[in-house]
Amino acid sequence: MSGWVAIAGLGPGDEALVTPEVQAALEAASDVIGYIPYVKRVAPRPGLTRHPSDNRVELDRALHALQLAAEGAKVVVVSSGDPGVFAMAAAVFEALEKHPEHLETEIRVLPGITAMLAAAARAGAPLGHDFCAINLSDNLKPWSQVEQRLRMAARGDFAMAFYNPRSRTRPYQFGEALEILREECGPERLITFARAVTTPEEQITTVTLAEATPEMADMRTVVILGNSATRRLGRYIYTPRSAL
Amino acid sequence: MSGWVAIAGLGPGDEALVTPEVQAALEAASDVIGYIPYVKRVAPRPGLTRHPSDNRVELDRALHALQLAAEGAKVVVVSSGDPGVFAMAAAVFEALEKHPEHLETEIRVLPGITAMLAAAARAGAPLGHDFCAINLSDNLKPWSQVEQRLRMAARGDFAMAFYNPRSRTRPYQFGEALEILREECGPERLITFARAVTTPEEQITTVTLAEATPEMADMRTVVILGNSATRRLGRYIYTPRSAL
Repeated sequence: MSGWVAIAGLGPGDEALVTPEVQAALEAASDVIGYIPYVKRVAPRPGLTRHPSDNRVELDRALHALQLAAEGAKVVVVSSGDPGVFAMAAAVFEALEKHPEHLETEIRVLPGITAMLAAAARAGAPLGHDFCAINLSDNLKPWSQVEQRLRMAARGDFAMAFYNPRSRTRPYQFGEALEILREECGPERLITFARAVTTPEEQITTVTLAEATPEMADMRTVVILGNSATRRLGRYIYTPRSAL
Repeated sequence: MSGWVAIAGLGPGDEALVTPEVQAALEAASDVIGYIPYVKRVAPRPGLTRHPSDNRVELDRALHALQLAAEGAKVVVVSSGDPGVFAMAAAVFEALEKHPEHLETEIRVLPGITAMLAAAARAGAPLGHDFCAINLSDNLKPWSQVEQRLRMAARGDFAMAFYNPRSRTRPYQFGEALEILREECGPERLITFARAVTTPEEQITTVTLAEATPEMADMRTVVILGNSATRRLGRYIYTPRSAL
Protein backbone atom coordinates (compact mmCIF):
# COMPACT_ATOMS: atom_id res chain seq x y z
CA MET A 1 0.00 0.00 0.00
CA SER A 2 1.58 3.27 -0.98
CA GLY A 3 -0.53 6.25 -0.17
CA TRP A 4 -0.06 9.79 -1.32
CA VAL A 5 -1.29 13.33 -0.74
CA ALA A 6 -2.16 15.72 -3.57
CA ILE A 7 -3.00 19.30 -2.61
CA ALA A 8 -5.21 20.42 -5.45
CA GLY A 9 -6.62 23.76 -6.57
CA LEU A 10 -10.24 23.67 -7.76
CA GLY A 11 -10.07 27.17 -9.22
CA PRO A 12 -12.50 29.98 -8.37
CA GLY A 13 -15.76 28.12 -8.99
CA ASP A 14 -16.42 27.40 -12.67
CA GLU A 15 -15.81 23.72 -13.43
CA ALA A 16 -14.34 24.73 -16.83
CA LEU A 17 -11.40 26.17 -14.87
CA VAL A 18 -10.46 22.89 -13.15
CA THR A 19 -7.32 21.56 -14.82
CA PRO A 20 -7.24 18.01 -16.26
CA GLU A 21 -4.38 17.28 -13.81
CA VAL A 22 -6.63 18.05 -10.83
CA GLN A 23 -9.53 16.16 -12.40
CA ALA A 24 -7.30 13.06 -12.78
CA ALA A 25 -6.16 13.28 -9.15
CA LEU A 26 -9.79 13.48 -7.97
CA GLU A 27 -10.64 10.41 -10.08
CA ALA A 28 -7.73 8.45 -8.56
CA ALA A 29 -8.44 9.51 -4.96
CA SER A 30 -9.74 7.32 -2.16
CA ASP A 31 -10.27 10.33 0.14
CA VAL A 32 -11.01 14.01 -0.30
CA ILE A 33 -10.33 16.42 2.53
CA GLY A 34 -11.13 20.12 2.78
CA TYR A 35 -13.31 22.98 3.87
CA ILE A 36 -17.01 22.07 3.57
CA PRO A 37 -17.93 24.12 0.45
CA TYR A 38 -14.86 22.90 -1.47
CA VAL A 39 -15.43 19.20 -0.65
CA LYS A 40 -19.04 19.71 -1.80
CA ARG A 41 -17.68 20.52 -5.26
CA VAL A 42 -16.38 16.92 -5.58
CA ALA A 43 -19.17 14.54 -6.64
CA PRO A 44 -19.67 11.46 -4.45
CA ARG A 45 -18.81 8.10 -6.03
CA PRO A 46 -18.24 4.53 -4.79
CA GLY A 47 -14.74 4.14 -3.36
CA LEU A 48 -14.40 7.81 -2.43
CA THR A 49 -14.69 9.00 1.17
CA ARG A 50 -15.30 12.73 1.58
CA HIS A 51 -14.09 14.46 4.76
CA PRO A 52 -15.56 17.96 4.93
CA SER A 53 -14.29 20.12 7.79
CA ASP A 54 -14.94 23.57 9.13
CA ASN A 55 -12.90 26.70 8.46
CA ARG A 56 -9.91 27.49 10.74
CA VAL A 57 -8.89 23.86 11.30
CA GLU A 58 -6.31 23.83 8.50
CA LEU A 59 -3.53 22.17 10.52
CA ASP A 60 -5.79 19.39 11.84
CA ARG A 61 -7.04 18.77 8.32
CA ALA A 62 -3.46 18.68 6.96
CA LEU A 63 -2.35 16.17 9.62
CA HIS A 64 -5.41 14.05 8.93
CA ALA A 65 -4.38 13.89 5.25
CA LEU A 66 -0.82 12.80 6.15
CA GLN A 67 -2.13 10.14 8.55
CA LEU A 68 -4.57 8.72 6.00
CA ALA A 69 -1.78 8.56 3.39
CA ALA A 70 0.45 6.71 5.88
CA GLU A 71 -2.31 4.08 6.06
CA GLY A 72 -2.24 3.75 2.25
CA ALA A 73 -4.96 6.21 1.26
CA LYS A 74 -4.78 8.34 -1.90
CA VAL A 75 -5.76 11.68 -0.48
CA VAL A 76 -6.66 14.87 -2.31
CA VAL A 77 -6.70 17.97 -0.12
CA VAL A 78 -8.89 20.45 -1.97
CA SER A 79 -8.51 24.23 -1.92
CA SER A 80 -10.38 26.76 -3.95
CA GLY A 81 -8.22 28.73 -6.37
CA ASP A 82 -4.56 27.70 -6.21
CA PRO A 83 -3.44 25.67 -3.18
CA GLY A 84 -0.18 27.64 -2.97
CA VAL A 85 -1.84 31.06 -2.62
CA PHE A 86 -3.29 31.62 0.87
CA ALA A 87 -4.60 28.07 0.89
CA MET A 88 -3.84 24.50 2.01
CA ALA A 89 -0.33 23.86 0.58
CA ALA A 90 1.52 25.87 3.26
CA ALA A 91 -0.71 24.32 5.95
CA VAL A 92 0.25 20.80 4.84
CA PHE A 93 3.97 21.67 4.99
CA GLU A 94 3.49 23.24 8.43
CA ALA A 95 1.88 19.99 9.60
CA LEU A 96 4.73 18.03 7.99
CA GLU A 97 7.29 20.14 9.84
CA LYS A 98 5.58 19.33 13.14
CA HIS A 99 5.28 15.63 12.20
CA PRO A 100 8.50 14.74 10.36
CA GLU A 101 7.63 11.02 10.53
CA HIS A 102 5.63 11.76 7.35
CA LEU A 103 8.55 13.30 5.44
CA GLU A 104 8.80 10.35 3.05
CA THR A 105 5.12 10.53 2.06
CA GLU A 106 4.58 11.38 -1.60
CA ILE A 107 3.19 14.93 -1.62
CA ARG A 108 2.29 16.80 -4.80
CA VAL A 109 0.91 20.31 -5.15
CA LEU A 110 -1.41 20.66 -8.17
CA PRO A 111 -1.82 24.29 -9.18
CA GLY A 112 -5.16 25.91 -9.96
CA ILE A 113 -6.56 29.22 -11.18
CA THR A 114 -6.26 31.56 -8.21
CA ALA A 115 -9.01 34.11 -7.52
CA MET A 116 -6.98 37.23 -8.35
CA LEU A 117 -6.11 35.95 -11.83
CA ALA A 118 -9.69 34.88 -12.56
CA ALA A 119 -10.89 38.28 -11.33
CA ALA A 120 -8.26 40.13 -13.36
CA ALA A 121 -9.31 38.19 -16.47
CA ARG A 122 -12.96 39.18 -15.98
CA ALA A 123 -12.07 42.84 -15.48
CA GLY A 124 -9.55 43.09 -18.35
CA ALA A 125 -5.87 43.13 -17.37
CA PRO A 126 -5.45 45.11 -14.13
CA LEU A 127 -2.47 42.91 -13.11
CA GLY A 128 -0.72 43.37 -16.48
CA HIS A 129 2.34 44.92 -14.83
CA ASP A 130 4.24 44.14 -11.57
CA PHE A 131 1.87 43.33 -8.70
CA CYS A 132 1.58 42.04 -5.13
CA ALA A 133 -0.79 39.54 -3.53
CA ILE A 134 -1.63 40.36 0.09
CA ASN A 135 -3.81 38.43 2.53
CA LEU A 136 -5.60 41.12 4.57
CA SER A 137 -6.55 38.72 7.36
CA ASP A 138 -4.66 39.34 10.58
CA ASN A 139 -5.58 35.96 12.03
CA LEU A 140 -2.02 34.73 11.46
CA LYS A 141 0.03 37.93 11.33
CA PRO A 142 0.03 41.24 13.19
CA TRP A 143 -1.89 44.10 11.58
CA SER A 144 1.31 46.20 11.72
CA GLN A 145 2.82 43.83 9.15
CA VAL A 146 -0.19 44.22 6.87
CA GLU A 147 0.13 48.00 7.15
CA GLN A 148 3.87 47.90 6.39
CA ARG A 149 3.25 45.74 3.31
CA LEU A 150 0.50 48.02 2.02
CA ARG A 151 2.79 51.05 2.36
CA MET A 152 5.80 49.36 0.73
CA ALA A 153 3.67 48.01 -2.12
CA ALA A 154 2.22 51.48 -2.70
CA ARG A 155 5.66 53.11 -2.67
CA GLY A 156 6.86 50.54 -5.21
CA ASP A 157 3.82 51.47 -7.36
CA PHE A 158 2.72 47.86 -7.51
CA ALA A 159 -0.79 46.88 -8.47
CA MET A 160 -2.19 44.83 -5.58
CA ALA A 161 -4.60 41.96 -5.10
CA PHE A 162 -6.17 41.53 -1.67
CA TYR A 163 -7.43 38.18 -0.40
CA ASN A 164 -9.75 37.80 2.61
CA PRO A 165 -10.47 41.53 2.81
CA ARG A 166 -13.25 41.27 5.36
CA SER A 167 -15.25 38.81 7.43
CA ARG A 168 -17.82 38.88 10.23
CA THR A 169 -15.05 38.44 12.79
CA ARG A 170 -12.84 41.08 11.14
CA PRO A 171 -15.19 43.88 10.10
CA TYR A 172 -12.86 46.87 10.69
CA GLN A 173 -9.45 46.17 9.13
CA PHE A 174 -10.49 46.60 5.53
CA GLY A 175 -11.61 50.15 6.29
CA GLU A 176 -8.19 50.84 7.78
CA ALA A 177 -6.53 49.33 4.71
CA LEU A 178 -8.57 51.65 2.47
CA GLU A 179 -7.47 54.65 4.58
CA ILE A 180 -3.80 53.67 4.23
CA LEU A 181 -4.20 53.18 0.48
CA ARG A 182 -5.96 56.54 0.02
CA GLU A 183 -3.11 58.19 1.93
CA GLU A 184 -0.41 56.45 -0.15
CA CYS A 185 -2.06 56.31 -3.59
CA GLY A 186 -4.48 59.25 -3.66
CA PRO A 187 -8.26 59.29 -4.12
CA GLU A 188 -8.31 58.71 -7.89
CA ARG A 189 -6.67 55.27 -7.89
CA LEU A 190 -8.93 52.57 -9.36
CA ILE A 191 -10.06 49.64 -7.21
CA THR A 192 -12.01 46.61 -8.42
CA PHE A 193 -14.22 44.45 -6.21
CA ALA A 194 -14.69 41.00 -7.71
CA ARG A 195 -17.23 38.90 -5.81
CA ALA A 196 -17.86 35.18 -6.40
CA VAL A 197 -15.91 35.36 -9.62
CA THR A 198 -16.85 32.82 -12.36
CA THR A 199 -19.95 31.70 -10.39
CA PRO A 200 -23.59 32.61 -11.15
CA GLU A 201 -23.39 35.26 -8.37
CA GLU A 202 -20.38 37.00 -9.92
CA GLN A 203 -20.28 40.78 -9.46
CA ILE A 204 -17.43 42.97 -10.68
CA THR A 205 -17.44 46.63 -9.64
CA THR A 206 -14.72 49.22 -10.22
CA VAL A 207 -14.64 52.56 -8.40
CA THR A 208 -12.02 55.06 -7.29
CA LEU A 209 -10.43 54.80 -3.85
CA ALA A 210 -12.43 57.92 -2.90
CA GLU A 211 -15.65 56.04 -3.64
CA ALA A 212 -14.62 52.71 -2.08
CA THR A 213 -16.30 51.62 1.16
CA PRO A 214 -15.57 48.58 3.36
CA GLU A 215 -19.07 47.19 2.73
CA MET A 216 -18.16 46.60 -0.92
CA ALA A 217 -16.13 43.54 0.18
CA ASP A 218 -16.92 40.30 1.97
CA MET A 219 -15.15 36.93 2.30
CA ARG A 220 -16.15 35.94 -1.24
CA THR A 221 -14.53 39.06 -2.68
CA VAL A 222 -11.05 39.49 -4.07
CA VAL A 223 -10.06 43.14 -4.40
CA ILE A 224 -7.65 44.50 -7.03
CA LEU A 225 -6.04 47.91 -6.71
CA GLY A 226 -4.46 49.37 -9.83
CA ASN A 227 -1.05 50.98 -10.03
CA SER A 228 -0.62 54.65 -11.00
CA ALA A 229 -1.08 53.85 -14.72
CA THR A 230 -4.16 51.60 -14.42
CA ARG A 231 -7.04 52.95 -16.47
CA ARG A 232 -10.55 52.35 -17.71
CA LEU A 233 -11.03 51.52 -21.39
CA GLY A 234 -14.67 50.99 -22.32
CA ARG A 235 -15.92 48.20 -20.07
CA TYR A 236 -12.39 47.03 -19.27
CA ILE A 237 -9.78 47.92 -16.61
CA TYR A 238 -6.16 47.46 -17.57
CA THR A 239 -2.62 48.25 -16.57
CA PRO A 240 -0.26 48.89 -19.48
CA ARG A 241 2.96 46.88 -19.70
CA SER A 242 5.02 50.01 -20.08
CA ALA A 243 5.87 52.58 -17.46
CA LEU A 244 7.88 54.68 -19.93
CA MET B 1 -20.73 37.38 -38.92
CA SER B 2 -19.79 38.22 -35.35
CA GLY B 3 -16.16 37.67 -34.60
CA TRP B 4 -14.49 37.62 -31.22
CA VAL B 5 -11.10 37.65 -29.56
CA ALA B 6 -10.19 35.30 -26.69
CA ILE B 7 -6.83 35.87 -25.03
CA ALA B 8 -6.02 32.46 -23.64
CA GLY B 9 -3.38 31.10 -21.26
CA LEU B 10 -1.87 27.74 -22.24
CA GLY B 11 -0.20 27.26 -18.86
CA PRO B 12 3.50 26.54 -18.39
CA GLY B 13 3.84 23.62 -20.82
CA ASP B 14 2.13 20.45 -19.60
CA GLU B 15 -1.10 19.87 -21.54
CA ALA B 16 -2.72 18.57 -18.32
CA LEU B 17 -2.59 22.18 -17.08
CA VAL B 18 -4.62 23.64 -19.97
CA THR B 19 -8.11 24.44 -18.63
CA PRO B 20 -11.22 23.02 -20.34
CA GLU B 21 -12.29 26.65 -20.94
CA VAL B 22 -9.17 27.34 -23.01
CA GLN B 23 -9.48 23.98 -24.77
CA ALA B 24 -13.06 24.85 -25.79
CA ALA B 25 -11.99 28.25 -27.14
CA LEU B 26 -9.24 26.64 -29.23
CA GLU B 27 -11.78 24.16 -30.63
CA ALA B 28 -14.14 27.00 -31.59
CA ALA B 29 -11.43 29.22 -33.12
CA SER B 30 -10.95 30.04 -36.78
CA ASP B 31 -7.57 31.71 -36.14
CA VAL B 32 -4.81 31.34 -33.57
CA ILE B 33 -2.31 34.14 -33.10
CA GLY B 34 0.81 34.24 -30.95
CA TYR B 35 4.52 33.86 -30.44
CA ILE B 36 5.91 30.99 -32.54
CA PRO B 37 6.49 28.38 -29.78
CA TYR B 38 3.03 28.97 -28.26
CA VAL B 39 1.18 28.70 -31.59
CA LYS B 40 3.08 25.45 -32.17
CA ARG B 41 1.37 24.01 -29.11
CA VAL B 42 -2.00 24.24 -30.94
CA ALA B 43 -2.51 21.26 -33.27
CA PRO B 44 -3.37 22.11 -36.89
CA ARG B 45 -6.86 21.15 -38.06
CA PRO B 46 -9.12 21.96 -41.05
CA GLY B 47 -10.76 25.36 -40.58
CA LEU B 48 -8.04 26.70 -38.30
CA THR B 49 -5.48 29.22 -39.55
CA ARG B 50 -2.40 29.56 -37.37
CA HIS B 51 -0.52 32.89 -37.35
CA PRO B 52 2.83 32.46 -35.58
CA SER B 53 4.83 35.65 -35.05
CA ASP B 54 8.17 36.58 -33.58
CA ASN B 55 8.87 37.90 -30.10
CA ARG B 56 8.68 41.68 -29.46
CA VAL B 57 5.82 42.33 -31.91
CA GLU B 58 3.08 42.08 -29.29
CA LEU B 59 1.21 45.24 -30.36
CA ASP B 60 1.18 44.27 -34.06
CA ARG B 61 -0.05 40.84 -33.12
CA ALA B 62 -2.79 42.30 -30.90
CA LEU B 63 -4.00 44.65 -33.65
CA HIS B 64 -3.99 41.78 -36.13
CA ALA B 65 -6.31 39.85 -33.77
CA LEU B 66 -8.72 42.81 -33.49
CA GLN B 67 -8.73 43.29 -37.29
CA LEU B 68 -9.43 39.62 -37.98
CA ALA B 69 -12.29 39.65 -35.43
CA ALA B 70 -13.75 42.72 -37.14
CA GLU B 71 -13.90 40.63 -40.33
CA GLY B 72 -15.83 37.93 -38.45
CA ALA B 73 -13.01 35.64 -37.36
CA LYS B 74 -13.03 33.78 -34.03
CA VAL B 75 -9.53 34.54 -32.84
CA VAL B 76 -7.62 33.01 -29.96
CA VAL B 77 -4.51 34.94 -28.96
CA VAL B 78 -2.33 32.42 -27.13
CA SER B 79 0.06 33.19 -24.28
CA SER B 80 1.99 30.76 -22.18
CA GLY B 81 1.04 30.77 -18.50
CA ASP B 82 -1.71 33.26 -17.72
CA PRO B 83 -2.43 35.95 -20.34
CA GLY B 84 -2.88 38.59 -17.61
CA VAL B 85 0.59 38.12 -16.09
CA PHE B 86 3.34 39.70 -18.24
CA ALA B 87 1.66 38.37 -21.36
CA MET B 88 -0.74 39.24 -24.17
CA ALA B 89 -3.83 40.56 -22.32
CA ALA B 90 -2.36 43.98 -21.55
CA ALA B 91 -0.96 44.18 -25.10
CA VAL B 92 -4.42 43.61 -26.60
CA PHE B 93 -5.91 46.38 -24.42
CA GLU B 94 -3.05 48.71 -25.39
CA ALA B 95 -3.83 48.03 -29.06
CA LEU B 96 -7.54 48.60 -28.33
CA GLU B 97 -6.76 51.95 -26.71
CA LYS B 98 -4.88 53.03 -29.85
CA HIS B 99 -7.67 51.68 -32.11
CA PRO B 100 -10.95 52.48 -30.33
CA GLU B 101 -12.90 51.54 -33.48
CA HIS B 102 -12.63 47.98 -32.08
CA LEU B 103 -14.12 48.82 -28.66
CA GLU B 104 -17.34 46.93 -29.38
CA THR B 105 -15.51 43.70 -30.30
CA GLU B 106 -16.21 40.83 -27.93
CA ILE B 107 -12.99 40.29 -25.97
CA ARG B 108 -12.57 37.64 -23.30
CA VAL B 109 -9.52 36.87 -21.21
CA LEU B 110 -9.25 33.16 -20.31
CA PRO B 111 -6.94 32.60 -17.34
CA GLY B 112 -4.24 29.95 -17.23
CA ILE B 113 -1.68 28.54 -14.79
CA THR B 114 1.05 31.15 -14.62
CA ALA B 115 4.70 30.08 -14.37
CA MET B 116 5.31 31.27 -10.80
CA LEU B 117 2.40 29.23 -9.43
CA ALA B 118 3.42 26.11 -11.37
CA ALA B 119 7.00 26.58 -10.13
CA ALA B 120 5.85 27.17 -6.55
CA ALA B 121 3.77 23.99 -6.69
CA ARG B 122 6.78 21.96 -7.86
CA ALA B 123 9.00 23.38 -5.12
CA GLY B 124 6.47 23.11 -2.29
CA ALA B 125 4.78 26.31 -1.18
CA PRO B 126 7.32 29.18 -1.35
CA LEU B 127 4.53 31.68 -2.17
CA GLY B 128 2.35 30.54 0.75
CA HIS B 129 2.38 34.02 2.30
CA ASP B 130 2.17 37.56 0.81
CA PHE B 131 4.22 37.88 -2.39
CA CYS B 132 5.06 40.07 -5.39
CA ALA B 133 5.43 39.27 -9.08
CA ILE B 134 8.05 41.38 -10.84
CA ASN B 135 9.06 41.39 -14.50
CA LEU B 136 12.83 41.96 -14.48
CA SER B 137 12.96 42.99 -18.14
CA ASP B 138 13.69 46.66 -18.62
CA ASN B 139 12.54 46.65 -22.23
CA LEU B 140 9.38 48.55 -21.24
CA LYS B 141 10.36 50.29 -18.00
CA PRO B 142 13.44 52.02 -16.64
CA TRP B 143 15.82 49.91 -14.57
CA SER B 144 15.45 52.46 -11.74
CA GLN B 145 11.82 51.36 -11.37
CA VAL B 146 12.84 47.70 -11.16
CA GLU B 147 15.38 48.61 -8.48
CA GLN B 148 12.81 50.61 -6.49
CA ARG B 149 10.33 47.73 -6.63
CA LEU B 150 12.93 45.20 -5.48
CA ARG B 151 13.82 47.39 -2.51
CA MET B 152 10.22 48.09 -1.50
CA ALA B 153 9.26 44.40 -1.85
CA ALA B 154 12.26 43.43 0.30
CA ARG B 155 11.39 46.03 2.96
CA GLY B 156 7.84 44.72 3.05
CA ASP B 157 9.30 41.21 3.57
CA PHE B 158 7.37 39.89 0.58
CA ALA B 159 8.30 36.65 -1.13
CA MET B 160 8.98 37.51 -4.78
CA ALA B 161 8.60 35.83 -8.16
CA PHE B 162 10.72 37.14 -11.03
CA TYR B 163 9.70 36.75 -14.67
CA ASN B 164 12.11 37.27 -17.59
CA PRO B 165 15.17 37.39 -15.35
CA ARG B 166 17.71 37.26 -18.15
CA SER B 167 18.09 37.08 -21.91
CA ARG B 168 20.84 37.31 -24.53
CA THR B 169 20.06 41.01 -25.00
CA ARG B 170 19.90 41.67 -21.24
CA PRO B 171 22.75 39.66 -19.71
CA TYR B 172 23.69 42.05 -16.89
CA GLN B 173 20.56 43.19 -15.05
CA PHE B 174 19.87 39.96 -13.23
CA GLY B 175 23.30 40.16 -11.59
CA GLU B 176 22.43 43.68 -10.43
CA ALA B 177 19.10 42.44 -9.11
CA LEU B 178 20.87 39.72 -7.11
CA GLU B 179 23.22 42.36 -5.65
CA ILE B 180 20.27 44.52 -4.55
CA LEU B 181 18.53 41.51 -3.01
CA ARG B 182 21.66 40.39 -1.13
CA GLU B 183 21.97 43.92 0.23
CA GLU B 184 18.31 44.07 1.32
CA CYS B 185 17.67 40.46 2.39
CA GLY B 186 21.06 39.12 3.45
CA PRO B 187 23.07 36.18 2.08
CA GLU B 188 21.07 33.36 3.71
CA ARG B 189 17.73 34.08 1.99
CA LEU B 190 16.54 31.13 -0.14
CA ILE B 191 16.12 31.54 -3.89
CA THR B 192 14.64 28.94 -6.26
CA PHE B 193 15.40 28.74 -9.99
CA ALA B 194 12.65 26.91 -11.84
CA ARG B 195 13.49 26.25 -15.49
CA ALA B 196 11.06 24.93 -18.11
CA VAL B 197 8.64 24.00 -15.37
CA THR B 198 6.24 21.08 -16.10
CA THR B 199 8.13 20.20 -19.31
CA PRO B 200 10.54 17.27 -19.84
CA GLU B 201 13.45 19.73 -19.40
CA GLU B 202 12.24 20.90 -15.98
CA GLN B 203 14.96 21.78 -13.48
CA ILE B 204 14.30 23.14 -9.99
CA THR B 205 17.26 24.34 -7.95
CA THR B 206 17.22 26.12 -4.59
CA VAL B 207 20.27 27.89 -3.17
CA THR B 208 20.96 30.79 -0.82
CA LEU B 209 21.36 34.32 -2.20
CA ALA B 210 25.08 34.02 -1.37
CA GLU B 211 25.34 31.04 -3.73
CA ALA B 212 23.11 32.45 -6.52
CA THR B 213 24.76 33.46 -9.80
CA PRO B 214 23.21 35.15 -12.85
CA GLU B 215 24.00 32.11 -15.02
CA MET B 216 21.47 30.06 -13.06
CA ALA B 217 18.67 31.87 -14.95
CA ASP B 218 17.67 32.20 -18.58
CA MET B 219 14.49 33.23 -20.41
CA ARG B 220 12.82 29.88 -19.64
CA THR B 221 13.42 30.37 -15.90
CA VAL B 222 11.09 31.82 -13.31
CA VAL B 223 12.90 32.72 -10.09
CA ILE B 224 11.28 32.67 -6.63
CA LEU B 225 12.84 34.44 -3.65
CA GLY B 226 11.55 33.47 -0.22
CA ASN B 227 10.61 35.87 2.54
CA SER B 228 12.46 35.95 5.89
CA ALA B 229 10.54 32.88 7.12
CA THR B 230 10.91 30.68 4.02
CA ARG B 231 12.61 27.39 4.86
CA ARG B 232 13.68 24.00 3.56
CA LEU B 233 11.78 20.96 4.76
CA GLY B 234 13.14 17.72 3.31
CA ARG B 235 12.92 18.13 -0.47
CA TYR B 236 10.40 20.99 -0.20
CA ILE B 237 10.66 24.77 0.13
CA TYR B 238 7.85 26.51 1.90
CA THR B 239 6.79 29.78 3.47
CA PRO B 240 4.59 29.40 6.53
CA ARG B 241 1.23 31.21 6.64
CA SER B 242 2.02 32.72 9.97
CA ALA B 243 4.44 35.52 10.75
CA LEU B 244 3.64 35.45 14.46
